[in-house]
Amino acid sequence: MGGLSFLDLANAVAIVAQAMTAALAAGRRRLDWFGVATLGCVTALGGGSIRDVVLGHYPLSWVAQPALLLLAAGAALATIPLARVVRRMPRTFLVLDALGLVVFTVIGCDVAVGLGVGTVVAVVCGLATGCTGGVMRDLLCGDVPLILRSELYATVALLTAGLYVGGLALGWPHDAVMLGAMCSGFAVRMLAIRHAWRLPTFSIDDEPRL
Amino acid sequence: MGGLSFLDLANAVAIVAQAMTAALAAGRRRLDWFGVATLGCVTALGGGSIRDVVLGHYPLSWVAQPALLLLAAGAALATIPLARVVRRMPRTFLVLDALGLVVFTVIGCDVAVGLGVGTVVAVVCGLATGCTGGVMRDLLCGDVPLILRSELYATVALLTAGLYVGGLALGWPHDAVMLGAMCSGFAVRMLAIRHAWRLPTFSIDDEPRL
Amino acid sequence: MGGLSFLDLANAVAIVAQAMTAALAAGRRRLDWFGVATLGCVTALGGGSIRDVVLGHYPLSWVAQPALLLLAAGAALATIPLARVVRRMPRTFLVLDALGLVVFTVIGCDVAVGLGVGTVVAVVCGLATGCTGGVMRDLLCGDVPLILRSELYATVALLTAGLYVGGLALGWPHDAVMLGAMCSGFAVRMLAIRHAWRLPTFSIDDEPRL
Repeated sequence: MGGLSFLDLANAVAIVAQAMTAALAAGRRRLDWFGVATLGCVTALGGGSIRDVVLGHYPLSWVAQPALLLLAAGAALATIPLARVVRRMPRTFLVLDALGLVVFTVIGCDVAVGLGVGTVVAVVCGLATGCTGGVMRDLLCGDVPLILRSELYATVALLTAGLYVGGLALGWPHDAVMLGAMCSGFAVRMLAIRHAWRLPTFSIDDEPRL
Repeated sequence: MGGLSFLDLANAVAIVAQAMTAALAAGRRRLDWFGVATLGCVTALGGGSIRDVVLGHYPLSWVAQPALLLLAAGAALATIPLARVVRRMPRTFLVLDALGLVVFTVIGCDVAVGLGVGTVVAVVCGLATGCTGGVMRDLLCGDVPLILRSELYATVALLTAGLYVGGLALGWPHDAVMLGAMCSGFAVRMLAIRHAWRLPTFSIDDEPRL
Repeated sequence: MGGLSFLDLANAVAIVAQAMTAALAAGRRRLDWFGVATLGCVTALGGGSIRDVVLGHYPLSWVAQPALLLLAAGAALATIPLARVVRRMPRTFLVLDALGLVVFTVIGCDVAVGLGVGTVVAVVCGLATGCTGGVMRDLLCGDVPLILRSELYATVALLTAGLYVGGLALGWPHDAVMLGAMCSGFAVRMLAIRHAWRLPTFSIDDEPRL
């Protein structure tokens, strides 16, 4: 790791963006400053941690690079004074959030592929890295995770992961595949927000007692 | 793994059954199709994953055999068109669910015993494998886990795990112990549902502020 | 481990205290006896388990020493008949609870330092060991974790961990640092309860849809 790669920079941006979403969720719940910092770290680093534990990939990223912890906690705390400004720029925020989703997803796939797992597992690891942080944030805040409700969020992660892992499996050049997967996922997410795209839902009204 | 053993088949049936319970829970919450598949995978494979992570037993079953992921997701999605039929056969469903519980519990004990842990830990691993998937399902759906309320569910897992690990410790023949533990647990679960057996509960009305 | 060290004894006391808090939470939710024992084990041993999994530190403490499981489950179950008495001694209870917090935190730091991680990670591991059990208890009971609300609980863990890891890093004698960190954390916690100290909270009323 002689210098910072594009992926390292994108990772840092994604951590900041995810920590800021966590801080805003914390603000809605009136958490204290420590809660804001904790929720920021869990949201920004939780997905990658779950992936590393599942794959037995030690040490975890934030154990190897504690600066990531400080970055996530700092970004969450910095959101407190910035909240008034950030709330007036929802579009900037959604752009950063979508960037975080596709970056985390590609990094998750990248780690899994580097460990030699198969295609399906690599896609699932990308998905888990991209989405799990937000699930943890919602669980800690007492909400049904957004990802399980009618959002195209996880589908975007699945698309991004599928394009990246599929492109690599076909032998296409790494950098082109990475950029193509990120841009496609990002574009679909932006279009999905704009046009309120949703997957069909499954709904049953009553059910026998299990 | 020259051929499929009885335990492999039972495992597949249990995964399908647990994924179907997850899909029905997802339907009550009106999740989208992606949420249905995700909840199916977490419920059907979550218990075994927690057990493997706790024991440091890598790779996880679904990393080694990604077909299990597709089986769980497929079973959950297949429940969507089947929901009308399944809801008319609560008894079939409860039978499959109880089968899943005892199979997962015995598999969990089996893995732990194979790693050379002691009796108490093996029983706890069986219990965790049998019950944790359902706990994760309930947490993600925002419910207090059923297992913590007045159900004999976990007690059945404890009984099954105790019989299996105890029988092996006494040097009884493996296959007889396995079948005996599964059948006993299954029978108790059926009787508990039929007669609404419950453990006594602990209830306090108020408490000093912690 | 020729004899029981002071830390082993403190650990046992902390496990008992945390399992008792879990049992009281279970009683408020009218869980059955099995739920009481399970919640006791998860609360008393969950923080250390998460720390060990995150650090790849196998085997987990309760796998190596299954007696800890029996201790936690036994303490939780013993709380059922004791509940009437315990509720009349809130002060004793809070003292034990605060003792558990600082002991778990110092043990968490100790394990992390022993594995050679850096200062920041060691502090986070202490924090996680001290607080995560209670978070799991609250999640399983369907509450927003207390730690994320206006309590000085986690701040005490942070202070304790910071003093311990900082003192060791400065080369001060181990036993003096350990006792100093525990006593400082304990005193601050007692004062915080007495005077209702709180951190400032972050609160926003509405927010654009993410």
